[in-house]
Amino acid sequence: MNSWLNEIRFTSDGLIPAIAQDAKTGKVLMFAWMNRESLHLSVEEGYAVYWSRSRGKLWRKGEESGHKQKIVSIQMDCDEDVLLLKIEQEGGIACHTGRESCFYRQLIDGQWQPIESVLKNPDEIYQK
Amino acid sequence: MNSWLNEIRFTSDGLIPAIAQDAKTGKVLMFAWMNRESLHLSVEEGYAVYWSRSRGKLWRKGEESGHKQKIVSIQMDCDEDVLLLKIEQEGGIACHTGRESCFYRQLIDGQWQPIESVLKNPDEIYQK
Repeated sequence: MNSWLNEIRFTSDGLIPAIAQDAKTGKVLMFAWMNRESLHLSVEEGYAVYWSRSRGKLWRKGEESGHKQKIVSIQMDCDEDVLLLKIEQEGGIACHTGRESCFYRQLIDGQWQPIESVLKNPDEIYQK
Repeated sequence: MNSWLNEIRFTSDGLIPAIAQDAKTGKVLMFAWMNRESLHLSVEEGYAVYWSRSRGKLWRKGEESGHKQKIVSIQMDCDEDVLLLKIEQEGGIACHTGRESCFYRQLIDGQWQPIESVLKNPDEIYQK
């Protein structure tokens, strides 16, 4: 039933990199890791579930922030070891800094310069 | 002079993942790894230079195929451990299979199905 999962070459740690791209605009929003279970859950639930390496557990993207990522499609690369997710970003914010994209700095004149504004204060996003 | 390089958090192996995206269309073309030297060379030469983990050496993308990637911009993510390269893909082919993008398979009805055609036979690309 899940033979498609067996075609993936996970790392020795059982992980695969996943790129999340806005399905409409094509903007690359973030990069994270999945394991077999989180990928399976992503497909089953229709929303991105990653594996948090720092916390060592499943990370349902948006579980705290509400910024869930609805999956539009999943693509795999030629080496079967990287995934590309086209998603709809709920709330329009993928980054924990409150920006649309995590890739908000650009190398300009030998310096990493922010090219995106904070749309929402992280303190307001992560209320405890 | 290269203080921007010091802001990057390379893995314990000295690597950083790099996503190559077509600067005009927004299409994600490939995913590869860089080390400090290859990133420095990429900026210096203006064309993507990766670190080939399988061959254990610098990989000037297109050195054999001619499919070089002219760098338009380099962005860095919030964790300083992933790069996004906007590039112009020479020859219109990024993948060693002869397709525009390495992400040419999509999960459809529980199967990885090709959604892109081969534009050029790899035997013609890699003549020896």
